[in-house]
Amino acid sequence: MYVETVKKTMKLPKTVRILDTTLRDGEQTPGVAITVDEKIRIAKKLDKLGVDTMEVGFPASSPGEMRAAREILKLGLNSQICGLARVLRSDLDAAIDTGVDYIHTFIGTSPLHREYKLKMSQEEILNKSVESIEYIKDHGITAEFSAEDATRTEFSYLKEIYNAVEEAGVDYINVPDTVGVMVPASMRWIISEIKKTIKVPISVHCHDDFGMAVANSLSAVEAGASQVHVTINGLGERAGNASLEEVVMALTSQYNIKTNINTKLLVDTSEFVSRITGIKMPPNKAIVGENAFAHEAGIHVHGVLQKAETYEPITPEMVGHTRRIVLGKHTGANAIKAKLEEYGIELNKDQFCKVFDQIKKLGDKGKCVTDADLKAMSETVLGRAQKEIVKLEGFSVMTGDNVMPTATVKLNIDGTIKTAAKTGVGPVDAAINAIQSLVGETADIELKEYNIEAITGGTNALAEVFVIMGDNNGNRATGRSTTDDVVLASVEAVLDSINKILIER
Amino acid sequence: MYVETVKKTMKLPKTVRILDTTLRDGEQTPGVAITVDEKIRIAKKLDKLGVDTMEVGFPASSPGEMRAAREILKLGLNSQICGLARVLRSDLDAAIDTGVDYIHTFIGTSPLHREYKLKMSQEEILNKSVESIEYIKDHGITAEFSAEDATRTEFSYLKEIYNAVEEAGVDYINVPDTVGVMVPASMRWIISEIKKTIKVPISVHCHDDFGMAVANSLSAVEAGASQVHVTINGLGERAGNASLEEVVMALTSQYNIKTNINTKLLVDTSEFVSRITGIKMPPNKAIVGENAFAHEAGIHVHGVLQKAETYEPITPEMVGHTRRIVLGKHTGANAIKAKLEEYGIELNKDQFCKVFDQIKKLGDKGKCVTDADLKAMSETVLGRAQKEIVKLEGFSVMTGDNVMPTATVKLNIDGTIKTAAKTGVGPVDAAINAIQSLVGETADIELKEYNIEAITGGTNALAEVFVIMGDNNGNRATGRSTTDDVVLASVEAVLDSINKILIER
Repeated sequence: MYVETVKKTMKLPKTVRILDTTLRDGEQTPGVAITVDEKIRIAKKLDKLGVDTMEVGFPASSPGEMRAAREILKLGLNSQICGLARVLRSDLDAAIDTGVDYIHTFIGTSPLHREYKLKMSQEEILNKSVESIEYIKDHGITAEFSAEDATRTEFSYLKEIYNAVEEAGVDYINVPDTVGVMVPASMRWIISEIKKTIKVPISVHCHDDFGMAVANSLSAVEAGASQVHVTINGLGERAGNASLEEVVMALTSQYNIKTNINTKLLVDTSEFVSRITGIKMPPNKAIVGENAFAHEAGIHVHGVLQKAETYEPITPEMVGHTRRIVLGKHTGANAIKAKLEEYGIELNKDQFCKVFDQIKKLGDKGKCVTDADLKAMSETVLGRAQKEIVKLEGFSVMTGDNVMPTATVKLNIDGTIKTAAKTGVGPVDAAINAIQSLVGETADIELKEYNIEAITGGTNALAEVFVIMGDNNGNRATGRSTTDDVVLASVEAVLDSINKILIER
Repeated sequence: MYVETVKKTMKLPKTVRILDTTLRDGEQTPGVAITVDEKIRIAKKLDKLGVDTMEVGFPASSPGEMRAAREILKLGLNSQICGLARVLRSDLDAAIDTGVDYIHTFIGTSPLHREYKLKMSQEEILNKSVESIEYIKDHGITAEFSAEDATRTEFSYLKEIYNAVEEAGVDYINVPDTVGVMVPASMRWIISEIKKTIKVPISVHCHDDFGMAVANSLSAVEAGASQVHVTINGLGERAGNASLEEVVMALTSQYNIKTNINTKLLVDTSEFVSRITGIKMPPNKAIVGENAFAHEAGIHVHGVLQKAETYEPITPEMVGHTRRIVLGKHTGANAIKAKLEEYGIELNKDQFCKVFDQIKKLGDKGKCVTDADLKAMSETVLGRAQKEIVKLEGFSVMTGDNVMPTATVKLNIDGTIKTAAKTGVGPVDAAINAIQSLVGETADIELKEYNIEAITGGTNALAEVFVIMGDNNGNRATGRSTTDDVVLASVEAVLDSINKILIER
């Protein structure tokens, strides 16, 4: 509502263009390198998501980058395909050579860049820039010009260079906050001032060094910018760029400005890019984080259960997410009752108090309570022990550098003792193979996912193994175990999961 | 520089108070639960960091929360200790009972909260609030009042309730953007309007649902707020709260506003909280992320090497961080030459080209090149093979549910073959114990850190083990190995690291 109040004082555009630079600035994230094949897979995802333009790389920087641009162009995507180039003939030729529709060319304009990096005068920089734009336009390609480090460049010079490239026929001028030094108020000021002399669309490229990339991008839009550079998960150099998912959702739901993004694909795209780059988002990442629509505190869950808007600014469905209610020490009785109802578990007042106390105690010990834990506690209170259909009676494993890793497992399956020995690529694989061969005689259960959570500490630290198993009827169950032996933890997690599936059947 | 331009139009405070709520809102992060002991350790860290006030919990919510507040108070810290309480006599009594200096009391004021959560009228809510403030002040305790969901509350009612609690003697009024719906411009508007009628200090509490918590907090300061609620790493419900490290560094370096925070402890505090909560920050987290001061792209490294300010808004030392130069496919020749010079490795033109090509090829394959890799490549090109002082000649491991995990290791240490068998809590521990017992006869090298990187896939996926070993002369080296057998990977990583230390000696 307060956003409505201030919006009246702004001349907001109806739509904003999204230039995604995950495959260029995002890929420059230190420690991240994406193969050509992976770039192609991400490009397809970005196209499906609906980005207007995707910057796919810096062709002049390596043969792989050139090949990636060429291969992506072959896909015939809807998005415009853009390549980065310095204002150097060789860089521009490399980009042109790939066949891109759009070239984003740049040169540093701030005193620091002129003096220490480029060792060039203002005039030389301006001339190189103008020549480059003319060269791109002579090839009939869309041209975007970035005055690198614009936000630390003298305003008079910045205006001069933007005016010069506009006269040379540039299609977009971009204002990069290269080192992330802006705040929303100064971003609004600089864009308004540029808007006074520039007629072509203004784009911004914000870095997140002080955590303000998203807000700065939106402030630029408030002041007249009509394109924003973003990356999935805010990847990019140092603290990264403005995150696509945050910018798009703020534009959509707070400013009521349209983009071509299919917001329902945001979580899926974010997870995909996480997996490929190996950069995992924390649970408290806005929009796409695991906790973005999760609620624990007792005080809040009550409100959420009554009406989700009480504690959610948008619905999880809008971004392809799901709501999660987590039980913990802050959890009030209301949330737990709702969960039990969901599972059709009826407890009397006494039984409920016992379960409730257990949850609080676990919370004070630093433990969270999963839905499965809640079910197990309730079953115990109700006097029904959870069945262990498959029980581990014994196992041993041998491995070494000249030994085929071999595991022997003895299981009690519904009263019958069975033994099997199997080999594998490592001791864990061997053990799981042995279990699967035994259980396979009763039910067709397969390992879908195996995950060792990162363990830091000594080698005697606890290993936490998390697995997902599934059968051919579509039943899936998670299994989890934590012990100080990684092989034993794996065996226990797998059996835990198998038992859950067998009980459901 | 543009921030300076807009600052002239603002009436900024000289100092801002930091109210840290890591132990309350941060601890309400779904999936996080901190034990009383851990709370005490974090409280000590926050005190050292210099937070003005720390909210240590919600005493009425569990006995553990009450105990935590009492125990933290016993430490006699410099920071004020604050407890959260609803405007309920029982909540207030629980907080008072712990002996806190400061009570932060709250009640929902927005139509959604009034209707769906509280089922109370405006008048009832106002009366309860006033009573509570009077009750807190009667006990001689500092009182802060939050109109929960203030940013979705009708302004006339909001003003009315803030005026009423001010009259009742409140010390701070807090404006929580409970669901993170604000943008910087609307935050500036609401705070300026409140400032017109309220004389006591104004505090803000921003949530990050659209990634704008930090910018909104700073906008509030621009408009007259003099206290901000923050959490380490931006922990908190859903997408979390404004991050302490980002808010403080923006205030310090962009606005030139003082806080009592010792910024040099920011990275250390962030890492400490990460370890305890289990919530790891991504490398692209501003200020404290692993990449916040890392540079990869060739174009940038050249500038950074000439003058760091070209691509860094503040120095890493200011926040207790270090600069990292990462080699990858974007890396230009300049960065690699600088690295080689750093290590005193001289290559002729031909040799350099060979190394440079290898790095580019690895980059296109999706691999990053560490400093050790660069050294190894150079040594190979120079015809000097890296010495393997300790070499694995053979090993075998046995484990099981009724077997003491046992490992036998045969090593070639500088020409002498030695064998040892040791047990451990698991097969990895046993193998490392055996290696250490053999190497220990030559050099006193200890395991400092052991880390299995998260592996997702089948049980035959690659396990990546990363270790740090160190000797008693302060030499430390990392070791890394990736194979499909987690035990073998651990053994190889440990030997890799031991060899690096022995070569240095």
